[in-house]
Parts: sequence; structure tokens; C-alpha cells
Amino acid sequence: MIDLASAMAESARLTEAALDRLLPKTVDDPTALQEAMRYACLGGGKRLRPFLVQESAKLFGVAEHCALRVAAAVECVHCYSLVHDDLPAMDDDDLRRGRPTTHRQYDEATAILVGDGLLTLAFEILAHPDTHADPQVRVNLVAALAVASGYAGMVGGQALDMVADRAGFDIGGVTRLQRQKTGELFAFSCEAGAILGRVDSARRGALHGFAHDMGLAFQIADDLLDVEGQEEEVGKPLHKDAEAGKATFVSILGLDRAREQARLLAEQAIGHLEVFEERADTLRAVARFVVERRT
Amino acid sequence: MIDLASAMAESARLTEAALDRLLPKTVDDPTALQEAMRYACLGGGKRLRPFLVQESAKLFGVAEHCALRVAAAVECVHCYSLVHDDLPAMDDDDLRRGRPTTHRQYDEATAILVGDGLLTLAFEILAHPDTHADPQVRVNLVAALAVASGYAGMVGGQALDMVADRAGFDIGGVTRLQRQKTGELFAFSCEAGAILGRVDSARRGALHGFAHDMGLAFQIADDLLDVEGQEEEVGKPLHKDAEAGKATFVSILGLDRAREQARLLAEQAIGHLEVFEERADTLRAVARFVVERRT
Repeated sequence: MIDLASAMAESARLTEAALDRLLPKTVDDPTALQEAMRYACLGGGKRLRPFLVQESAKLFGVAEHCALRVAAAVECVHCYSLVHDDLPAMDDDDLRRGRPTTHRQYDEATAILVGDGLLTLAFEILAHPDTHADPQVRVNLVAALAVASGYAGMVGGQALDMVADRAGFDIGGVTRLQRQKTGELFAFSCEAGAILGRVDSARRGALHGFAHDMGLAFQIADDLLDVEGQEEEVGKPLHKDAEAGKATFVSILGLDRAREQARLLAEQAIGHLEVFEERADTLRAVARFVVERRT
Repeated sequence: MIDLASAMAESARLTEAALDRLLPKTVDDPTALQEAMRYACLGGGKRLRPFLVQESAKLFGVAEHCALRVAAAVECVHCYSLVHDDLPAMDDDDLRRGRPTTHRQYDEATAILVGDGLLTLAFEILAHPDTHADPQVRVNLVAALAVASGYAGMVGGQALDMVADRAGFDIGGVTRLQRQKTGELFAFSCEAGAILGRVDSARRGALHGFAHDMGLAFQIADDLLDVEGQEEEVGKPLHKDAEAGKATFVSILGLDRAREQARLLAEQAIGHLEVFEERADTLRAVARFVVERRT
């Protein structure tokens, strides 16, 4: 039996330490930039994407310090996206992980630059020789992360989210939005292990399929939490989608069918992992966790 | 005698065409994101950084289509920085190259995402096999661009600029600000040719020295234009630094000494190019151009 909570806590601890090492040290900086980059990245978060990187890397015997650097890079991208998404011109959120958002703690200009700095740092980390001895592996990581987080991936998904209150998306539109906004970075996180391990495209494809289904399940769970969750527990304002009139999986499918769909997707995600036998048991547990989580 | 104006115009045409090919095609995008990315990048600008990439690449016989992709990537980073710097929370500018800034033409959320998308695209372009057959070269380009444009480079420089009105910078502070804000990306542009050409560190160092001095000369000329230029000619609002009470080379040195210093730096920049003999005549002409330009 996998103790997922312990495994995730230990992985989060390692990720936090890696981020602490890789983020600027705030020496000789007359601005708040470097301190704010640390504020935005350190101190909390589930660190789910780094966990996926580390677990997928373990499938192929990748050295832990290599996987950790990729995990830190993915988390830099995730945190930058949160900082920019929280800005007044975007979702205008004051609270994140139970603390003031970066633009509330500092100011808007700093928050914009924090996001820019974190995104750039992610690529700096990946390109560094410490990430992998083989430059082909490093450049493959850079290419995959750029595609996953750019206009055809995460940034494009956030753009879709900004028009979601008036676009009248059907289930296909919502699926596309979420696949771009969160799914592509999940997929990169899971495929990173395969890239680091230089494995064949079949096994990389299996991880892609897993991540895709798991990402959608994760998002439906997020929509459910937005409707059913407790604000104190979740650590961010809830009911925002309904108030904004945005179509979500829950608004289209209803609570019961959405819950059922999340469970089906989690099982479907697990189905992709057969080739990895019992070595993927932790990833299987992750898929179950994302639909059962309360925060 | 070098016809610099023709050479720059031809290079700008090639860069524009490369950007046109590499930017998203706005097919099937229900948001304004992809169109706005094109708006922010296409249609104008001196394309000075792409020109430096192309000219430095020519020193080492690098294939034109490789240099052009790097030139386009640098311009994506430059254009993203302009879009974010123009935002209301930053410099709050309405006009850029004689046209509405991206957040004025579209909206703030779109402008933030345009910047994020362009920065990410720059790394996608560099990491792609078409940029160079050798993955070591591509990953070196990614690493150098990330360092030049991140918290220790361009983003850090913009953060310094945001506090410049109250930091009371002396000449050392202003030099550091400008070196980070514009100098590092100039340096990357000039060194890109050496990275693409896989040349020794001495020749890469010579280009770094050239770029560093030329970048400072460029910035002093910019400060002079801010005081002496014609708004219609320059295509953006002027006198902003003085109104904001920011220390600049001109406010510290005065007009005459600033003009003299720009000329000295341009000559010093040219001094670094000796090793390249007459093959660097165009780069020499660029150094003279940046201090004599009127826009």
C-alpha cells in the first residue's frame, strides 16, 4: 500500500530545498524583485507537478538531482502563471495558498516582473549542464516545456479563460481550455522523466496519455471544489467561476455527472500505466488522489 | 564604404519575414492572443538586435537561416519586454513606434499574456533543431539568452528602473541599471554569432566587450534623445525620465559630457573588433550609428 501523503510531503520538501537553492539569493538587490520571486515560489503549495516529474523519472532510474532540477523548473513556470493570473487585469485575486498574492504583498509592477523572471529562470535551470550531461536531453526539455507553456499551451489556455465568461463554451470548449491551461504542463511534468531517461516514444506516449486524463480529472475536481469546497480549507476564494458566469465542467455536466466523469478519467489515466507494472503504483495513487482531494 | 542604412533595412526585412513565419498564424483562436502577439512583433522597429545577431554570425560563416531564427528569438524577447514595460503598472505608455501600445490596442490581460507568450516562444525557437544541427549549440543559446534576459539581466534592469525615481542612483547605479536593462540583451545578440559559430572564448569575449560598450553608448544616446529629440520623429513620448525625476546619464553628466562619453564608448567598442579585421566593418558602422541616430 502506497503512503501517498508521506511520499508527496517528502517530495515537496525536496522541491522546496531545490527551489531555495536555485532562486536568487537577494544579495545586493536594491529592488524587491528577488525577494518577491522567492515569496511567490517558496512556502507552500501541493508541489504536484514536481512530484510528477520525480515519480516519472524514478520509472527510468534517472538520478534524483537531475529530476529535482526539472521539478524546480516546472514549479517556477507554475508559480509564474499563478502570479500573473492573480493580477488585477486577470483574475484579480487577493489570496493564494492562504497568503496575500504577490501583487498584494508587493505591487503590480513587481508581480509582473516576478512572473517574467521565474519563467526565464525555468529555462535557465533546464539548459544548465547540471540538469543532464547530454545537451540533447536538456534541449529536448527546453523545447517540450516551451511548447507546453506557450501560446498553444498554458498561456493560450489562460487567454481562453479570460474570454470564458462570454464565449459560451460547450464541453469541447471547456475541455480545450483546461487541456491548454493546466493539462499541457501536467503532461510535460510526466513526460519529463521519459525525456531524462531517453526512453522510446511508446513509453513517453503512455505517460502523455496518463497525464492528459489525469489533468482533466484534476480540473473537474477543481471545479467541484469551487462549488463544494470550504474557503478556509482550499486557501483561495471560491465560487468565482459561477459568479463570473464561466462555463465549467460542473456547470455543463452538473455535480453528479462531473464527479462520475472525474472518477472515470482517473481510471482511464491509470489504464495507460500498465506497461510500467508495479513501478507506477505511486502515479496510480496520484490519479486517485487528484479526484479525492479536498484542497 | 559601408551603406549601413541599406544593410539594416535588408536585415530588418529578413527579420520581419522570419517573425512572420515563426509567430502563430491566428488560425482557430477565439481569443485575441495570437493576433496581439503578431501586433506586438510585426510592423516596425529598428531591429537592431536581430541585425547584431546576423552581423556577428557572418563573422564566422554561420548559415543565414540559423542566424535568422536566433535574430527572431531575440526580437521576441525585446518585443515582450516592450509590451510589459508599457503596461499601466510599469511605464504606462500609450504609444510605441507611433502606434497604440499592445494594452491600448487590446487590453491589459491580453498584453500580459502576449509578453508571456513571446518570451516562451523565444526559447521554443532556439531549442528547435532548425536553429542549429548541434544540440550543444542550441542549449548554449538557450542558457545565454535566459541569463541575459532574467533577473540578473533585463528583468532585473527593469526592476531597477521602477525604483530609479527614488533610489538616487549615482553614475555607477545608472550604469548597472542600463547594463542589465539593455546591455545584456545587446551582448547576447553579438555573442550569438560566436555561439552559433562555435568559436573560441577570446573571440566571443571580443564581441562581448564590443556589445557592452556599444550598449552603454546606445543608452546614453537614448537619454540624449529623451531630452533633445522630436516626439514625431522618435515615435514615443519624450522627457519622461526628467518628469519622473529619474537619474540618467544626461542628468548626472550634463548634455555635453554625456555626448562626449557616448562618442568615447563607441570608439572603445570599435577597439574590441580589431581581431576581426575588415570583416567587422559593418559592426563598426553600427557603433557609430547608435550614437548619431535621431530616432
